[in-house]
Amino acid sequence: MIFVFTGNGKGKTTAAIGQAIRVLGNKKQVAFIQFIKNPDWKTGEDRALQKFKKNLTFFKGGKGFVGIMGDRLPRSVHQKAALSTWQRAKRLIRSKKFSLVVLDEICVALQLKLLSKKEVLSFLKKALQGVDIICTGRNAPKELLGIAGLVTEMKEIKHPFQKKIWGKRGREY
Amino acid sequence: MIFVFTGNGKGKTTAAIGQAIRVLGNKKQVAFIQFIKNPDWKTGEDRALQKFKKNLTFFKGGKGFVGIMGDRLPRSVHQKAALSTWQRAKRLIRSKKFSLVVLDEICVALQLKLLSKKEVLSFLKKALQGVDIICTGRNAPKELLGIAGLVTEMKEIKHPFQKKIWGKRGREY
Repeated sequence: MIFVFTGNGKGKTTAAIGQAIRVLGNKKQVAFIQFIKNPDWKTGEDRALQKFKKNLTFFKGGKGFVGIMGDRLPRSVHQKAALSTWQRAKRLIRSKKFSLVVLDEICVALQLKLLSKKEVLSFLKKALQGVDIICTGRNAPKELLGIAGLVTEMKEIKHPFQKKIWGKRGREY
Repeated sequence: MIFVFTGNGKGKTTAAIGQAIRVLGNKKQVAFIQFIKNPDWKTGEDRALQKFKKNLTFFKGGKGFVGIMGDRLPRSVHQKAALSTWQRAKRLIRSKKFSLVVLDEICVALQLKLLSKKEVLSFLKKALQGVDIICTGRNAPKELLGIAGLVTEMKEIKHPFQKKIWGKRGREY
């Protein structure tokens, strides 16, 4: 089944981590693949998830924010990173070794057209047997919502960034 | 700061687990307190979180669903359980040992009036210094949203229970 955690509020990636932890606790195999996010960003969850490395394949394949927050990389660099992350995700899904595959921020990669929506959707539609796939990120395309079994919109009601309080280590990353 | 994950969609508790994992990965202390949920329910996350027991205080203090799903317990039993869980939560928060305290399903305990909203809110308001507190559960009272720094509504857009597919071990619990 496909799960989508989308919307502009906090909790999409954290919910995917929580779901991964639940599945890992049941001693099943999980692949956690991050688009957009740069492997140079070391986060609390990366360190914590290492405790599960026997049953977890974790891969961060992005090059950071695209076109914002001082990003000066050519678009082609982001595109290549997204494509190679997607190739890797497909191999992992095809291996049928995993109960859960998380495609974190794939909705963002799709919205930015770093990946072909058509190709991703046609692959995911066929991959549905026996694996749960969580797709996260803002602005999930409506075609993805169509093939998903569960969709939650994480809706921002109140957020401290609105008040110019910035992310704190251990809380936001 | 107080975080609230509310709404009728999937992802509230899982986001709290994910946030706890992030903080634990940064080697800080976390208390994860569950209202409503019965300690007899063994879940994947319980098992997984045991890996972090050095830095994690985990406590499940409920008696199960209240008034639904075949619950026949007198209300007083649920009330007593919620109160003693709340007393425990207060002790943990007061100890100032924790960077993050999760009060999972406390919004449900408040909505069912198992706890006094006035008492809980006045305590939480005073506890704000130096600790992050996550409150989860449907129907968060608006007074709690008022004192929260971050609120996400997990909104159900699509859910398989709508189609009478029931929870699967390793996915829903």
